[in-house]
Amino acid sequence: MKPVVVRNISRADGSVIEALGSYGVASVHEAQGRLGLMKTYMRPIWPGAVIAGSAVTVLAEPGDNWMLHVAIEQVKPGDIVVVGVTADNTDGMFGDLLATSLKARGGIGLVIDAGCRDVKDLKEMGFPVWSRAISAKGTVKATPGSVNIPVVCAGVNVNPGDVIVADDDGVVVVPRAQAAEVAVTAKARIANEAEKRRRLASGELGLDMYNMRDPLARAGLVYVDTLEDLDK
Amino acid sequence: MKPVVVRNISRADGSVIEALGSYGVASVHEAQGRLGLMKTYMRPIWPGAVIAGSAVTVLAEPGDNWMLHVAIEQVKPGDIVVVGVTADNTDGMFGDLLATSLKARGGIGLVIDAGCRDVKDLKEMGFPVWSRAISAKGTVKATPGSVNIPVVCAGVNVNPGDVIVADDDGVVVVPRAQAAEVAVTAKARIANEAEKRRRLASGELGLDMYNMRDPLARAGLVYVDTLEDLDK
Amino acid sequence: MKPVVVRNISRADGSVIEALGSYGVASVHEAQGRLGLMKTYMRPIWPGAVIAGSAVTVLAEPGDNWMLHVAIEQVKPGDIVVVGVTADNTDGMFGDLLATSLKARGGIGLVIDAGCRDVKDLKEMGFPVWSRAISAKGTVKATPGSVNIPVVCAGVNVNPGDVIVADDDGVVVVPRAQAAEVAVTAKARIANEAEKRRRLASGELGLDMYNMRDPLARAGLVYVDTLEDLDK
Amino acid sequence: MKPVVVRNISRADGSVIEALGSYGVASVHEAQGRLGLMKTYMRPIWPGAVIAGSAVTVLAEPGDNWMLHVAIEQVKPGDIVVVGVTADNTDGMFGDLLATSLKARGGIGLVIDAGCRDVKDLKEMGFPVWSRAISAKGTVKATPGSVNIPVVCAGVNVNPGDVIVADDDGVVVVPRAQAAEVAVTAKARIANEAEKRRRLASGELGLDMYNMRDPLARAGLVYVDTLEDLDK
Amino acid sequence: MKPVVVRNISRADGSVIEALGSYGVASVHEAQGRLGLMKTYMRPIWPGAVIAGSAVTVLAEPGDNWMLHVAIEQVKPGDIVVVGVTADNTDGMFGDLLATSLKARGGIGLVIDAGCRDVKDLKEMGFPVWSRAISAKGTVKATPGSVNIPVVCAGVNVNPGDVIVADDDGVVVVPRAQAAEVAVTAKARIANEAEKRRRLASGELGLDMYNMRDPLARAGLVYVDTLEDLDK
Amino acid sequence: MKPVVVRNISRADGSVIEALGSYGVASVHEAQGRLGLMKTYMRPIWPGAVIAGSAVTVLAEPGDNWMLHVAIEQVKPGDIVVVGVTADNTDGMFGDLLATSLKARGGIGLVIDAGCRDVKDLKEMGFPVWSRAISAKGTVKATPGSVNIPVVCAGVNVNPGDVIVADDDGVVVVPRAQAAEVAVTAKARIANEAEKRRRLASGELGLDMYNMRDPLARAGLVYVDTLEDLDK
Repeated sequence: MKPVVVRNISRADGSVIEALGSYGVASVHEAQGRLGLMKTYMRPIWPGAVIAGSAVTVLAEPGDNWMLHVAIEQVKPGDIVVVGVTADNTDGMFGDLLATSLKARGGIGLVIDAGCRDVKDLKEMGFPVWSRAISAKGTVKATPGSVNIPVVCAGVNVNPGDVIVADDDGVVVVPRAQAAEVAVTAKARIANEAEKRRRLASGELGLDMYNMRDPLARAGLVYVDTLEDLDK
Repeated sequence: MKPVVVRNISRADGSVIEALGSYGVASVHEAQGRLGLMKTYMRPIWPGAVIAGSAVTVLAEPGDNWMLHVAIEQVKPGDIVVVGVTADNTDGMFGDLLATSLKARGGIGLVIDAGCRDVKDLKEMGFPVWSRAISAKGTVKATPGSVNIPVVCAGVNVNPGDVIVADDDGVVVVPRAQAAEVAVTAKARIANEAEKRRRLASGELGLDMYNMRDPLARAGLVYVDTLEDLDK
Repeated sequence: MKPVVVRNISRADGSVIEALGSYGVASVHEAQGRLGLMKTYMRPIWPGAVIAGSAVTVLAEPGDNWMLHVAIEQVKPGDIVVVGVTADNTDGMFGDLLATSLKARGGIGLVIDAGCRDVKDLKEMGFPVWSRAISAKGTVKATPGSVNIPVVCAGVNVNPGDVIVADDDGVVVVPRAQAAEVAVTAKARIANEAEKRRRLASGELGLDMYNMRDPLARAGLVYVDTLEDLDK
Repeated sequence: MKPVVVRNISRADGSVIEALGSYGVASVHEAQGRLGLMKTYMRPIWPGAVIAGSAVTVLAEPGDNWMLHVAIEQVKPGDIVVVGVTADNTDGMFGDLLATSLKARGGIGLVIDAGCRDVKDLKEMGFPVWSRAISAKGTVKATPGSVNIPVVCAGVNVNPGDVIVADDDGVVVVPRAQAAEVAVTAKARIANEAEKRRRLASGELGLDMYNMRDPLARAGLVYVDTLEDLDK
Repeated sequence: MKPVVVRNISRADGSVIEALGSYGVASVHEAQGRLGLMKTYMRPIWPGAVIAGSAVTVLAEPGDNWMLHVAIEQVKPGDIVVVGVTADNTDGMFGDLLATSLKARGGIGLVIDAGCRDVKDLKEMGFPVWSRAISAKGTVKATPGSVNIPVVCAGVNVNPGDVIVADDDGVVVVPRAQAAEVAVTAKARIANEAEKRRRLASGELGLDMYNMRDPLARAGLVYVDTLEDLDK
Repeated sequence: MKPVVVRNISRADGSVIEALGSYGVASVHEAQGRLGLMKTYMRPIWPGAVIAGSAVTVLAEPGDNWMLHVAIEQVKPGDIVVVGVTADNTDGMFGDLLATSLKARGGIGLVIDAGCRDVKDLKEMGFPVWSRAISAKGTVKATPGSVNIPVVCAGVNVNPGDVIVADDDGVVVVPRAQAAEVAVTAKARIANEAEKRRRLASGELGLDMYNMRDPLARAGLVYVDTLEDLDK
């Protein structure tokens, strides 16, 4: 495929994005049927940030950050840049200069299946990044890639305009067309959990609250006083 | 083996457990002859916690957290739940709801050879977890496992009632029958280190304090002014 | 080769070392042509430290910290001890006692291609370490190695007296003979970046600031409104 | 998304598939602009096999091989089953019984981002598999997934009907719509290489054949007799 | 614990061991409830060997093969030596001299959670080894460990006298007391598979043979002609 | 450092190189004091080859194989090209065309701390390669590196002209100046092993042949009949 930049992408509704961000990665991941979670090697470069936004996608060559400059022009306020690469790589493709530029255009974060550098500066800027590595390794600008095409990032297919939610638990991708429905499901799930949390905090057991005792017995679970009793 | 829950386990003496916790992982590991240390991939999900307690063990299928609910009923105040799985896995088998339940029953921490989620909530609760991964990946409740049987967790055999000590250096397991003796050895070791620390801080060399110069010379170590002198 | 300690090593000029430390790992790495960066598995055991100093090198057997005691005698104020091992290893070869001793002799940090322990103590002491692992695993004192010979640490060749710069981005090695020149280049680079940062912060695009549009077009990059337009 | 099986998929032309197989993974990968290569952890369970076919895709839960039975019904002669999973996993989801069934329906191979077992039997059957691991770990049939939807396998997006080429170098995916064009490009590339191979075998240097000397000099490469000459 | 060699261990019945070997790793693993499988990093150093025997266990320090000499004296014809180490290590603790000695005493194979060397010689001798790495790295004889105590090898607890089965799929451990029962279960499983294999080879689908269609429908699986039909 | 090609390098004596090759990696590694072994991830792309030759070194950028063409011009018959890269990388930097060229100039093998492709062709050519990965990923020719400067390859420092020995056990580097001495030591070691092998094959124990019983007892090893006897 020839290198291409797609200028017009559709985004999910702002209120839906905001809602998904407030539910967090684990709840959103559950609400869409346990799909869309990036691999666990994607970690925040500093802890505590929670963001949600629309994906501006980048397909880059490993060790080549040319397309990040290209992508920033396509960013609208509230967007998150998501970078996939064509082979495993940990080079530091993003640092404080690119973050300054991305932030100036309204970008709120970066998700990159490669390395990130200038960690201390990014933390001081409050600019959140999820990456597979931290590396000062510099990069070249030799081969063009593409912007706003479907990419694979950390094991998940990301389409431009999909909703990205990222926090200390990792990164989850919600297909744009399903974002509203997932938000509804996640909201119900969160509401439901508050009551469960109250009951568990009072000492009620999950075994009882979820009626697990019968299914466990049917699945063959037995209780004994000591391990020696098992063979009796 | 059929799935089983063992209700009665023996625990080490409370004062021994408390003492072991105060010595920390490195000292306890040394005191028992450099045994019992879990693999280094086991890391705290937030830094700074130090805990010691009796192991309530769980053998679970990867990606299936059914037995965690079962285990919580067997927990007594001060216990630590230790989870081994039957194949390598990083799914998020433990989160804030289970932590709420475990804490309500007196559990003081979790050690899991798999993933953990809701990291931010767990940190805010002050509930410490040592895990091989952080992952929002949801789990099923399909196959029963066992509680309070011997399990392997992160490369170490753990019997129910063994003493677990965990801090920023990792996790060490002390067999229950040896806990008192290890505590005595560790205490002596700690006392001995205070004097060493004072001497080293004053600038005395380990080479002299430990009388290493002669053994090193006998082992063939030579001193030269420059590398070129070596071939003379 | 027989085990040897080289007593006399040359060091770079103190003002050069200080300057390199002020520029940070990423800038220094760039300034010397993207060379000398240690592998990304080398991470600080606590965040935020930035150090620069002359390397006192150690070649040790895996799981054997005897030579660390030997090395400390060769340390001068401002030095950094750099430890390579002869096979991959994560054992905790360095802890609070050795740190106390190293600090007392003026050492300002440790870079070790193996494990480190007593993380909490080291953090409280403010003593920075970059290591490939955190591990409480104890070590032996059985086989001598060497001090102040060329070693490989985390994929980079380090000669005694080379300048080490380490921060949250990792560790970079500057050959002693090139340190002054690299410092000049890095300084110019830093100065140049301040102006770029200002322009990018104001919303100017890297595409324009770096005149990338023509080269990208020549490399075949095309812009379309939608992906479907590409096949027209 | 709810679990779904898509019955009708489009496949590339048989002669195109056959041609792509004859060119091999490396040439096909180059011919489509160095895209579509699966991660290097995907290895053949026995060496020497070369296959090309249309992808029947499967999205499965880790450790759950229920959907493989479902997928086999959708296979047409010459197809290759490609399995992605929703979280990293190495369990043995495929063995000799499933291979017998898949082969009986005309399937010619399997590409799975998880584990495979019965390696000796599969080798004796001559049934090729590319997997991320070999593992005897058994699996459950608890959660449905999907068949013939877009999946991510080993870092590459695979759509049903895409052409898969696999050999000892790995696995490459060719989007169905581009298969014919890629085949033409690859054929030209192969033809071009034969002449190059002849010239290189005769001792001609790539430096001369590709006219690299001038570009290298312009990029700053210098020749010296000894390393010491560099500083003169 | 002090270093110890236990001289008397119980072994399973020879005919049971032989039977388990004939069923292979995958079937034995299934027959004991999917337990006892070593981690997938344990690979044969040459393909094709299948062995079954009683475990003589060794707990060794990483990089120290002293105890292998000690263990060989305890080996009886048909035994397999199983080596666990106290920290992750890949050094070459076993080579052709030790293999010559072990073979002379009747040992039939080695399973080691560390490295192995002299691979070509071992292959020519026909002596099978399963290891986590191949490494020529030499080892010391500095610290005693133990023989015939419970050890953890590649994530599985192994007691002396347990039955080890190893083939191209990996290594499985059968507790001695359960070996006879597991052999009976595995035999039935194998018999059952022959008929299944015949039916699948004839083109019958697993979907029908295992009556999966109804459970799948109940679990929510739907069939559509094209993906677009899903949203109708 | 600027990119440079050093034309004149010194090589070890041909008879020394031949001798080292005949002893194999493990013996040579031992003979030079257990130094110089590359990391265990370096594996032959096909089994059975044994080579020894002089290193022509290459420092390349990851994913950029320009310097391999440059290096081939510097190769003399019997040389082995050794490639280090400036950051971790697995791209396929070497394939059948480069092998044809290298072979035509007398090169006998390649050792590369990156990926290799065209595995089947290379095997058919009988051209041996040791690499960290097999990957069809194509590379660019964008940035010059250097030839015949000191490089780090797989954790070992390699100087141009050093002797490389590679076989199924891995790759070992012998500094040129020490090659003759190491060959003498290795020869003696090999001779010594033949007698040991004969005695071990006859059933004599290493415990007796090496007089280990007393040192083991002094180190605290005890023998008991059963584990229960230990506590008596």
